[in-house]
Amino acid sequence: MEKYSDDTLNALFQSLADPTQRAVISALGQGPATVSELAGSHDMALPSFLKHIRHLERSGVISSQKQGRTRICVLHPEAMNVVEDWLKKQRRIWDGRTNCLQDLAEAAERDELKNV
Amino acid sequence: MEKYSDDTLNALFQSLADPTQRAVISALGQGPATVSELAGSHDMALPSFLKHIRHLERSGVISSQKQGRTRICVLHPEAMNVVEDWLKKQRRIWDGRTNCLQDLAEAAERDELKNV
Repeated sequence: MEKYSDDTLNALFQSLADPTQRAVISALGQGPATVSELAGSHDMALPSFLKHIRHLERSGVISSQKQGRTRICVLHPEAMNVVEDWLKKQRRIWDGRTNCLQDLAEAAERDELKNV
Repeated sequence: MEKYSDDTLNALFQSLADPTQRAVISALGQGPATVSELAGSHDMALPSFLKHIRHLERSGVISSQKQGRTRICVLHPEAMNVVEDWLKKQRRIWDGRTNCLQDLAEAAERDELKNV
């Protein structure tokens, strides 16, 4: 059983699957930025870009606040913990299986040598 | 610059964003399985399920092979390296910034104490 809801993982992985949203996450890793600064490097209309910002806000990985006539976005890296935890859990299982298969192969090799 | 193509990351994160494909990745982590075994725990028609299998094959995270009348699926965990590398790179930047902000806060606190 997962300790976090599927919806949270779906939303976060959806953000990561989108190159624009992934780039925003990457950019905000360097520090807060205004929507205009973030939009500047993307070749799309502002309303389309704002949809990406809203998706990122809904998935909890960023938040934004209006300051005068600008909107400042801030990253919440802790929101990514569930994604990293899920992948780490899978990696432990994969590596465990690889080690197990290696052990079996080595055991089989030792048995073969014994029978030489 | 990313060392791997955006398309690879997009496809892998899209697979991870889909609860069915994520469950298949999780199940195949335990070892190879037939399409029927994998489909068994999902409440959807086989053609829909096969679309998910094909997406996973295209993103390179699984491969499948026909053996008689069954199709066996195998996970390729190494395909996930690019996803894990991307997240680890971001995490290093986030943690670096957090440490930097902590250092600044501690330095400011020391300065305040000096001035008491």
